[in-house]
Amino acid sequence: MRTLETPALILDKVKLQQNLSTFQNRLLALGVRLRPHGKTAKNIDVASLALAGQPAALTVSTLREAEYYFEHGITDLTYAVGIAPSKLDHVCDLIKRGAKMKIILDSAAQVSLAAAKAATHGVILPVLIEIDCDGHRSGVQPDDQLLLDLAQQIVESQDLMLRGILTHAGESYACTSIEDITALAEQERSIAVQCANTLRSNGYPCLEVSVGSTPTGRFVENLAGVTEFRAGVYMFYDLVMEGLGVCNKEEIAATVLTSVIGHQHNKGWLITDAGWMALSRDQGNGQHGSGIVCTLDGTPHPQDLIVSGTNQEHGIITRRDGGAIDPADFPVGTLLRILPNHACATAAQYGQYHVIDGSETVVDVWDRVNGW
Amino acid sequence: MRTLETPALILDKVKLQQNLSTFQNRLLALGVRLRPHGKTAKNIDVASLALAGQPAALTVSTLREAEYYFEHGITDLTYAVGIAPSKLDHVCDLIKRGAKMKIILDSAAQVSLAAAKAATHGVILPVLIEIDCDGHRSGVQPDDQLLLDLAQQIVESQDLMLRGILTHAGESYACTSIEDITALAEQERSIAVQCANTLRSNGYPCLEVSVGSTPTGRFVENLAGVTEFRAGVYMFYDLVMEGLGVCNKEEIAATVLTSVIGHQHNKGWLITDAGWMALSRDQGNGQHGSGIVCTLDGTPHPQDLIVSGTNQEHGIITRRDGGAIDPADFPVGTLLRILPNHACATAAQYGQYHVIDGSETVVDVWDRVNGW
Repeated sequence: MRTLETPALILDKVKLQQNLSTFQNRLLALGVRLRPHGKTAKNIDVASLALAGQPAALTVSTLREAEYYFEHGITDLTYAVGIAPSKLDHVCDLIKRGAKMKIILDSAAQVSLAAAKAATHGVILPVLIEIDCDGHRSGVQPDDQLLLDLAQQIVESQDLMLRGILTHAGESYACTSIEDITALAEQERSIAVQCANTLRSNGYPCLEVSVGSTPTGRFVENLAGVTEFRAGVYMFYDLVMEGLGVCNKEEIAATVLTSVIGHQHNKGWLITDAGWMALSRDQGNGQHGSGIVCTLDGTPHPQDLIVSGTNQEHGIITRRDGGAIDPADFPVGTLLRILPNHACATAAQYGQYHVIDGSETVVDVWDRVNGW
Repeated sequence: MRTLETPALILDKVKLQQNLSTFQNRLLALGVRLRPHGKTAKNIDVASLALAGQPAALTVSTLREAEYYFEHGITDLTYAVGIAPSKLDHVCDLIKRGAKMKIILDSAAQVSLAAAKAATHGVILPVLIEIDCDGHRSGVQPDDQLLLDLAQQIVESQDLMLRGILTHAGESYACTSIEDITALAEQERSIAVQCANTLRSNGYPCLEVSVGSTPTGRFVENLAGVTEFRAGVYMFYDLVMEGLGVCNKEEIAATVLTSVIGHQHNKGWLITDAGWMALSRDQGNGQHGSGIVCTLDGTPHPQDLIVSGTNQEHGIITRRDGGAIDPADFPVGTLLRILPNHACATAAQYGQYHVIDGSETVVDVWDRVNGW
């Protein structure tokens, strides 16, 4: 790492692999396979590690990710954002090229538009009905007649195939205790199973019952009736997850390498070259500014330093307790590593990972597929 | 635009050119040339328009920008972030390949490190001393003996060339009135000129007196003694600039095109496919959520809608007054455009611009050079 131009995104493969196996084993023990979410890593090397010993099936958040993972041989892909009409041609094209693409929807308008496009392209388009299990954003309300209306509309189409339901307990990020997360995990499961049973008892197919978020995956105790679990940020973890009790700081696998470029002696500040462009604007849970400062080995600095301010390419590092930093402890050129608030947001600022293997040595460079 | 996959970054060339000429003419009328900052657009087509009728000289915020603009024929480049030691080899390499790269610094350590690297590479490295004119982040305090000490250290080196001073009134983004911005512009100018005069009266060269920020450029009344002005976001403008009174909403040239993908009927929400990945996490001045919603023609929607919530790939649009949105007004697939809080942050989420010429028609696609 000592010869890298900063800022750079560092990925510790040892921590990554530990996070992957712990999370996966937890879900396997509950009898459910993982469909890793490709949105955090946006990289085939990470995805391949995450799929070790599992079926080659991913979740994606953009069609660009879908293209990328498909080109790298992963054909079973669920695009887990409600489908926009402007993306249907692209989805159908992926299917024609051999992808097992599934889309999600929660409205009659989407069913009509998807059916029409599938017919135009001469493909059968597999769909999941999105369920709102926690009022977080989108999806059909679990007890809404719309669920059965959509199922009927889908099965009446010659061009769509109803595969099941999908839900995401996004409110788990806003929980304030492990008990709350555990309860929300059961809510996510029970509502998903309830909706699946509603479909089945009314004669509709529901092979897939897909749930998931990293916090609920960490604490869920029962996944009876669920067929797959989706999560992404568990691969890297971050300070938001740490704040929720989902991980500890030592498990955070993605960090930002930065250089000290100056000091404000009167204020006791360090100035670095990791600003908001390098760290993202994500303020996480509001406890750590734009991130916690570590020494080069990735351990939180004993002086308890945070990135308390950022400009585009400048970071301001201060002591959490407000005391002045002694510039002599951090000469110009000192390399530091920052634990990010939100790994998805921070990683998205980079085109590549510099991969380390637990030590200081960069052993690989892995690309990322950003944008749409 | 109607056939684009969303989200997409739209750049209105008519507004862009108006912004460029208005800002440039204002500074030319004050007798100062503009050295546009390449950090907002990160694109050669925009930079070329910004340089029309001016010397081909840019400011950059990363060495990746420097490489990119250099490859596109712009050789006179000021890297306006305090130099990190790990970047000096790259800077020297650019100089060896013909770039007129200038770096900035504010410490004796940086002078020593830069001189050593320049000697190793056998180049003369032009440097500017960074001045702190407003306590914003980095730079030498104007009345600090360090200014003369650094000048002496630089001129004693055989390998560095003292070109002058550089400062940036970054606190202008935090001003609350046009009077405050105007006063800060004069402070930026007068401190820069004072430091330049300190250098000259002590026998040091100071050919370049470089100042600038978009807010101070908009309201500055006197630039006597200044040789160049740097600014970037004036090209696109955004809601932060609008909140400062620097522009109006109609001048914002970069917007995000998004599709309505659903509704939460009970809550009166629209769900779109522009989440924080598409808009950035920047909350601007806190007045507009993650942005103001416009109709497809770029005019703020008459229902006064804002992006009040975001997930990674989902936006939640609500009425500012808290009333419910009638889903019938926004069928699935409706295209909207979002005015961003901060153009630099939002544009950085995209690999390209879809350029329009005042109408709905995309007339060009321009790339962006993100990362480091």
